[in-house]
Amino acid sequence: MEDIKFNHTLPIQLRFNDVDALGHVNNTVYFSFYDLGKTNYFEAVRHVKIDKHNVDVVIASIKADFLLPVFPKENIAVQTAVTEIGNKSFKLFQQVVNTDTKEVKCICTTVMVGFDFQTGMSKVISDEWKHAICEYEGRDDLIRSHHS
Amino acid sequence: MEDIKFNHTLPIQLRFNDVDALGHVNNTVYFSFYDLGKTNYFEAVRHVKIDKHNVDVVIASIKADFLLPVFPKENIAVQTAVTEIGNKSFKLFQQVVNTDTKEVKCICTTVMVGFDFQTGMSKVISDEWKHAICEYEGRDDLIRSHHS
Amino acid sequence: MEDIKFNHTLPIQLRFNDVDALGHVNNTVYFSFYDLGKTNYFEAVRHVKIDKHNVDVVIASIKADFLLPVFPKENIAVQTAVTEIGNKSFKLFQQVVNTDTKEVKCICTTVMVGFDFQTGMSKVISDEWKHAICEYEGRDDLIRSHHS
Amino acid sequence: MEDIKFNHTLPIQLRFNDVDALGHVNNTVYFSFYDLGKTNYFEAVRHVKIDKHNVDVVIASIKADFLLPVFPKENIAVQTAVTEIGNKSFKLFQQVVNTDTKEVKCICTTVMVGFDFQTGMSKVISDEWKHAICEYEGRDDLIRSHHS
Repeated sequence: MEDIKFNHTLPIQLRFNDVDALGHVNNTVYFSFYDLGKTNYFEAVRHVKIDKHNVDVVIASIKADFLLPVFPKENIAVQTAVTEIGNKSFKLFQQVVNTDTKEVKCICTTVMVGFDFQTGMSKVISDEWKHAICEYEGRDDLIRSHHS
Repeated sequence: MEDIKFNHTLPIQLRFNDVDALGHVNNTVYFSFYDLGKTNYFEAVRHVKIDKHNVDVVIASIKADFLLPVFPKENIAVQTAVTEIGNKSFKLFQQVVNTDTKEVKCICTTVMVGFDFQTGMSKVISDEWKHAICEYEGRDDLIRSHHS
Repeated sequence: MEDIKFNHTLPIQLRFNDVDALGHVNNTVYFSFYDLGKTNYFEAVRHVKIDKHNVDVVIASIKADFLLPVFPKENIAVQTAVTEIGNKSFKLFQQVVNTDTKEVKCICTTVMVGFDFQTGMSKVISDEWKHAICEYEGRDDLIRSHHS
Repeated sequence: MEDIKFNHTLPIQLRFNDVDALGHVNNTVYFSFYDLGKTNYFEAVRHVKIDKHNVDVVIASIKADFLLPVFPKENIAVQTAVTEIGNKSFKLFQQVVNTDTKEVKCICTTVMVGFDFQTGMSKVISDEWKHAICEYEGRDDLIRSHHS
């Protein structure tokens, strides 16, 4: 994995029933953490509240690698960064970490694509959004020159 | 408890993470079962699919009594009946049962009130709906004469 | 409702999929908030971490009254107090509030009973626990003299 | 994608709060479907009920591609097949399909690794399990000869 610097870290409040019969946080629940991290990241980048009326991206694919279990009462956070921006899509890298031990519990790569909920069609990522991300990440090498 | 005859029984498909760290179905998950039973009951009574566009009732209160735990791999169902209809509200009685042993695991009473999502105001339960419920239940003693 | 003074308030982190198709927090999700409030309350009262190995109470019944919807991005908290202690049970009163407007969104009464997970039998609430609750609440009138 | 023949199809019962504020099944919920499909598949292959006492694999990684949204009231199923078996791991291929239209909504690849919950160490996939899978799939080309 390339060495990612995260500018966005969101502490996660675990719930009692996040933990399954095996005694650790259920694999399906991590995706709620990534969702939460993602939404908060977009709000931090774009300075707007995200709700159903202004969502303009959808998840195309998610890949998660489960490295270590999360047990009840661990203090965890989800960290989020955009690592690449294309014409109609961008790539997020996220990880769930124990904030005390710094252990990385799970890493996740998500591809999101621009989507117009009115027309049901994909759409380009706006320049405004691209620049907001680059500014937030402090990187000008995120935008891919060609194909989405 | 009065002796209720149920005309509506919906088998429930348990999910792996319905079960919490204590090894039985988490108390919060029963309310998903009651929700599912309720929605299916309304569809059976009114012969329409319920979606966000035609919801015209909201939950005012729910009371559940947990009698026995549900363990993974039990075959369970949720049973639903309306037991009383007022002017602006009606009362549902539901139970979660093991369909093999007939054990009653949990009973639940819910008060639902008519609600207009356009105006955000309560509204009366329509005569059409009242009659559909009475017909479905095969009872003509459900409708309260006075106050909601 | 009697006028309850809450010594325990836990801010809740909403998740994206707490909100259902109707655009507000789904009724079933409130019970996760109450669970979380309860667990944190017990830990504050008893100065121990609660996990599956030291749980010694189960939920006998829950009654929730839904007063106002919770919308995404509201800042909410769950407040918890014990209002009555019997021999083998005690009663919790909880509410979900908007921490900005102080609006009460939902109130909830829960009866919990002492339970021995080894034997599967009910058991008395220990004097140690009773006193810890009274001390936490700063009240000496919580303990009922008779029947559980 | 290679052309997979599925011997295992499990209809999924959608719940009301599987659907998020955007009006379609939330991305995190698909992973519950895959979990359910997986557990049922293992039970069909091994002729045992899976519970917390006999789990001997854990998820190492999951990759899901979201092709089409699932709307409330669609009839869906999850299909599961093992496509490759290594020394200490195997690969599952799953998809969520609309059983009426046959549309493929989402595809998912999962790597599971043998795990001993007593020791907390990885372990080999037993020959018994390998053969049960090959028999169930009717294929003798699943087992990789070398490294896990």
